[in-house]
Amino acid sequence: MSHNTFGHLFRFGTFGESHGPLIGCMVDGCPPRIPLTEADLQGFLDKRRPGQSRFTTQRQEPDQVRIVSGVMVDERTGVQVTTGASIGLIIENVDQRSKDYGEIRNQYRPGHADFTYDAKYGIRDYRGGGRSSARETAMRVAAGGVARKVIPGVTVRGALVQMGPHKINRANWDWAQVDENPFFCPDAEAAQAWEAYLDGVRKAGSSCGAVIEVVAEGVPPGWGAPLYAKLDAEIASAFMSINAVKAVEIGDGMAAAALSGEDNADQMRTGNAGQPHFLSNHAGGILGGVSTGQPVVARFAVKPTSSILTTRQSVDRFGADVEIRTKGRHDPCVGIRAVPVGEAMMAIVLADAYLRHRAQVGDGAPQWPFAR
Amino acid sequence: MSHNTFGHLFRFGTFGESHGPLIGCMVDGCPPRIPLTEADLQGFLDKRRPGQSRFTTQRQEPDQVRIVSGVMVDERTGVQVTTGASIGLIIENVDQRSKDYGEIRNQYRPGHADFTYDAKYGIRDYRGGGRSSARETAMRVAAGGVARKVIPGVTVRGALVQMGPHKINRANWDWAQVDENPFFCPDAEAAQAWEAYLDGVRKAGSSCGAVIEVVAEGVPPGWGAPLYAKLDAEIASAFMSINAVKAVEIGDGMAAAALSGEDNADQMRTGNAGQPHFLSNHAGGILGGVSTGQPVVARFAVKPTSSILTTRQSVDRFGADVEIRTKGRHDPCVGIRAVPVGEAMMAIVLADAYLRHRAQVGDGAPQWPFAR
Amino acid sequence: MSHNTFGHLFRFGTFGESHGPLIGCMVDGCPPRIPLTEADLQGFLDKRRPGQSRFTTQRQEPDQVRIVSGVMVDERTGVQVTTGASIGLIIENVDQRSKDYGEIRNQYRPGHADFTYDAKYGIRDYRGGGRSSARETAMRVAAGGVARKVIPGVTVRGALVQMGPHKINRANWDWAQVDENPFFCPDAEAAQAWEAYLDGVRKAGSSCGAVIEVVAEGVPPGWGAPLYAKLDAEIASAFMSINAVKAVEIGDGMAAAALSGEDNADQMRTGNAGQPHFLSNHAGGILGGVSTGQPVVARFAVKPTSSILTTRQSVDRFGADVEIRTKGRHDPCVGIRAVPVGEAMMAIVLADAYLRHRAQVGDGAPQWPFAR
Amino acid sequence: MSHNTFGHLFRFGTFGESHGPLIGCMVDGCPPRIPLTEADLQGFLDKRRPGQSRFTTQRQEPDQVRIVSGVMVDERTGVQVTTGASIGLIIENVDQRSKDYGEIRNQYRPGHADFTYDAKYGIRDYRGGGRSSARETAMRVAAGGVARKVIPGVTVRGALVQMGPHKINRANWDWAQVDENPFFCPDAEAAQAWEAYLDGVRKAGSSCGAVIEVVAEGVPPGWGAPLYAKLDAEIASAFMSINAVKAVEIGDGMAAAALSGEDNADQMRTGNAGQPHFLSNHAGGILGGVSTGQPVVARFAVKPTSSILTTRQSVDRFGADVEIRTKGRHDPCVGIRAVPVGEAMMAIVLADAYLRHRAQVGDGAPQWPFAR
Repeated sequence: MSHNTFGHLFRFGTFGESHGPLIGCMVDGCPPRIPLTEADLQGFLDKRRPGQSRFTTQRQEPDQVRIVSGVMVDERTGVQVTTGASIGLIIENVDQRSKDYGEIRNQYRPGHADFTYDAKYGIRDYRGGGRSSARETAMRVAAGGVARKVIPGVTVRGALVQMGPHKINRANWDWAQVDENPFFCPDAEAAQAWEAYLDGVRKAGSSCGAVIEVVAEGVPPGWGAPLYAKLDAEIASAFMSINAVKAVEIGDGMAAAALSGEDNADQMRTGNAGQPHFLSNHAGGILGGVSTGQPVVARFAVKPTSSILTTRQSVDRFGADVEIRTKGRHDPCVGIRAVPVGEAMMAIVLADAYLRHRAQVGDGAPQWPFAR
Repeated sequence: MSHNTFGHLFRFGTFGESHGPLIGCMVDGCPPRIPLTEADLQGFLDKRRPGQSRFTTQRQEPDQVRIVSGVMVDERTGVQVTTGASIGLIIENVDQRSKDYGEIRNQYRPGHADFTYDAKYGIRDYRGGGRSSARETAMRVAAGGVARKVIPGVTVRGALVQMGPHKINRANWDWAQVDENPFFCPDAEAAQAWEAYLDGVRKAGSSCGAVIEVVAEGVPPGWGAPLYAKLDAEIASAFMSINAVKAVEIGDGMAAAALSGEDNADQMRTGNAGQPHFLSNHAGGILGGVSTGQPVVARFAVKPTSSILTTRQSVDRFGADVEIRTKGRHDPCVGIRAVPVGEAMMAIVLADAYLRHRAQVGDGAPQWPFAR
Repeated sequence: MSHNTFGHLFRFGTFGESHGPLIGCMVDGCPPRIPLTEADLQGFLDKRRPGQSRFTTQRQEPDQVRIVSGVMVDERTGVQVTTGASIGLIIENVDQRSKDYGEIRNQYRPGHADFTYDAKYGIRDYRGGGRSSARETAMRVAAGGVARKVIPGVTVRGALVQMGPHKINRANWDWAQVDENPFFCPDAEAAQAWEAYLDGVRKAGSSCGAVIEVVAEGVPPGWGAPLYAKLDAEIASAFMSINAVKAVEIGDGMAAAALSGEDNADQMRTGNAGQPHFLSNHAGGILGGVSTGQPVVARFAVKPTSSILTTRQSVDRFGADVEIRTKGRHDPCVGIRAVPVGEAMMAIVLADAYLRHRAQVGDGAPQWPFAR
Repeated sequence: MSHNTFGHLFRFGTFGESHGPLIGCMVDGCPPRIPLTEADLQGFLDKRRPGQSRFTTQRQEPDQVRIVSGVMVDERTGVQVTTGASIGLIIENVDQRSKDYGEIRNQYRPGHADFTYDAKYGIRDYRGGGRSSARETAMRVAAGGVARKVIPGVTVRGALVQMGPHKINRANWDWAQVDENPFFCPDAEAAQAWEAYLDGVRKAGSSCGAVIEVVAEGVPPGWGAPLYAKLDAEIASAFMSINAVKAVEIGDGMAAAALSGEDNADQMRTGNAGQPHFLSNHAGGILGGVSTGQPVVARFAVKPTSSILTTRQSVDRFGADVEIRTKGRHDPCVGIRAVPVGEAMMAIVLADAYLRHRAQVGDGAPQWPFAR
């Protein structure tokens, strides 16, 4: 029953609003004796942090994470490690300007959760969006940092592959480019073009959507489970839980519908590393809900930020028609900062799948190729 | 921990393989005193049943469902109703031909879960696909029939909106057409064209994918919850748990990424039924994870069946390269029979969301428009 | 959300009423490649089966269990093993006499769940007690048989240690005696005395309670977890979920309250098997919610059957006072048949704890004594 | 999967160790619009707080709780209420003396979780007991304060009914006495006698156990559920999760085993308040796992504190025999401070049961007496 909690064996829950004193997170089920320091998490948080270029909100949030429980220094090695206890993570809020939100107190911004929260709860914390604030995703990134330590052989990387209507040229894909532009874009040419495009969007007080691709390499065959614990079902749930996400794809995704059976199914040949060699990866590394050993490839689409400067038609909480125009400091393309969030959610899903696989099957299962 | 179970308060679990004596399902958490008979469920099962046209597998499975627990006749009314106890549902298997599968016993069919199940468990039930068989979805349809009775004000309908590369013309959408062609297609013209197309696919021993759209009308505002219990996250998980699904969209889905903030956010005006009137439904009836009161609109893409007559390259379980060609009785487009399955999963997600909403908020919450 | 399901990673759910066509069970999360046949389960069911002596109900239920899914014969070895899929278990009902229950249709038997089910659900399946029937425990015993196969190094045994007010003499404890009398009593002298006592109870149309002790040997140190996944908390929940149970004790149980700190805490000395040697076992093999490596010892108290021949004061469902006298075939001491049920629940808790321990900690944890 | 979380719909999770900067708690699933301030919780925390008499540990912990999320002031009423979001609760640690624990760093105290934590995790946070510290129970008390607000018609009260071997005289029971002595004892005479007894225990550097009784009045019929969601099973799990608890009883508890069926079953007569009038309450307010409308009565036994001044035999983590004597500031009878903890856990179980009952059955169920 996971209103504010995600995961099964490796799981985390979050609390806190952007205007409150702090946001917090509790990571449960982490294996013991895993080296873990605040510095391990801070790098991922810095990547998500706003205010780093003119293309993200100008709020200044240092997002300094504190680990308040669940670790201790192993006296034999001098290394700080997890103890197996629940790990408390806390980030103080330092730049909340609650007055910015005063005038939308009783008005419902189109495309936001304002109306639906009020409809559900009969009350709405309008200050900074309350629990619907993207600020909550900082805690996901921190928890994702812990998850990465649980699956050290796995590399999880994300990239922006579409901004507004503009897709990258996949032939240009270069992971090294991702850190060279403010968009986490793997195509240097596209990044160049996006800069002008997003400047236009920003100056117009408008916003645009984006598509993020997350790739996990090093996942061995066998993680996930059939039916309702499918690895792809959990990735879909994880990505769709991120603010503003409207679609999730695994491997070829929507495009798979247009393929023929011949083109879609990934053929195999014997390899030389104890795993079959797949001739393609339309499946995105998952078959029947279980990892194949190929890279796990998933994408999600983020809708354009609903906070825009154009006046829009709406209603207020008392039943009157209103015209509304969202001020405040917002991201013209929230998809950019969603990249580290997507990576974190993928890492969390994989850590949880790993532990559950280890639970059911143990470490000693027979492996392909099998003896006759 | 849901290997074989889905849902929280309203939830169901399944067991059984296509070659075994029966498949079964246990529905837990159903409210009491709801009228329920086998006939209520059978209609949905008949819709999913194979062998009804030349476009689905020629297996003959009557799929007669039995309710074995959780109901009794209310003596005052003479109506059979739920008691609040777990509801056992059973379908006998009558047309298993296990010899059909003999030769793929040790070979991994490309695009199937053969390799991944073996990689996970070190053993694989190759007979009829074991738990990866689409036969399991019959139980989802039965459970979905129960779910529909829990939310009687909600109508859940599905339709095929794309077959292979061929999309419907949405201007032609007519729900009445859905039952008039073998494809659950709401566009009579497209259905006509698909017939020839799918005949070609079938005769070539090939297969094609599809896109299914499921629409739920009558969902009031307020179902779902923020963060990790988002209604859309649960729909995504539900749809992605269906065999062969590779993508899930809510509302505008992937296309939302290419919209501007102005075009995407659904504006509102005061209506006259105690709910705002939305001027569009790009959001697919969900904002911030919570229903808006508009129709909930979701789609999923199904990859082409991997069972095709063309010879493909693969490996066997002992590490040898093999050429493989899938015989047996298969669907050229599994997407067709996925329509009632998608409807069922949507109904189950909604029934669960309804009960959880009732738990947290009760029936007496204040409603829009609010008093000042 | 476990109305009808118990456990986390290794878990089972049940459905079915005693008067219906069958009772069923779904075991989820079982590791693959574990040898499992119906014969493995039947022995435990036979132990619980009624009608074996004059001291249990004279209903005749062969309780023949069928495994309908989740197993297959491993072709290399010829041994039937689990596949990792959900295991369906079914027992047909063959001796339901629904007319026996007709006259209590609208009356609430004191001490039974009649009134509370009606109060909760607004409807009550009075036939054979519906879901409150002890018949449901047959499925627990079957699921417990599967659990035992998951933890082959662990021996779980139960015994009746008190019947009515008559306790065994613990100095006489001999496990070999348990199968030599109709009471699962480890004290031959007590068993002798109980025979006369229970004959008196039975002939008077009365009933008596009992205390059952369950001991698990071979549990290694480390199973369970702190706080809300304490091994003892899960045993308490498991035992209290059995019909008619009113108390659960771990180790010294209630008597621990009267001990001094000196007498209660189990001292340790170095042993020679990689585990400390404990000088006593007041703790019942659990400290801080985690197993110590000593035998896990737990007890539960069963109240006397509420179905007795003496006329009692009660009310009916329409609000009238009634005098009620329960006819039908009942156990004078349900505690006897609760012995195999208690064993089963202990095995299930341990199997679940084992898998979760393996998930979080893996197989390669450092072990006592640790290197400096 | 609840290592550090308890409950289903109303649930809470805790993090933090006694020697760290703070302890924290996240309460999820709380209904919205419930008045809630820190003062509402502080009273219960003050009751549990150590250092209030010479009979509890002399640590000074002000235990000032902060609500850091999930509430806001309703502007129409000026009252601070819950928003439906997760509620973060934090208590700073101010009196940790980590050096006190230095010498037991590598030694296992008999009766403590020292060995078992090490055996499980391969590492142990010896500082203040880490997660096994009773300090964690402060967060339970805070969460219990929230739970009480969810079920305002229910009164939950606890009392110490046995200290060491000394039971109260139940004929003297007077709830008003509970706050008049340092033991939460409802029997003024017993409290007097206990003072001398506990002084003796304390001066001897010894410790004693206790039995706590918790009574919930105002619970309507119908809360709880059959089988594995039995109200008594959840109380058993809740109480057994409290540090040092070794037994749980519902109603007559262990004593029920010695009763006859005639004496045990609570007879009923028509009352005049829409509920049957029960002539006794041996059942402790629960039949078949569901509340009867009578007071819910449960007890738990706490073993004597294992921290005593007498030298005890033990082993260290490196495999050597040691003699150990626990210094530091400890409670001679931890059962005293367990009273508010038991109350809190009862309130949490009931709040969760209430929400789940409302989910499945709604508010409009027919009620006894039923129409013909």
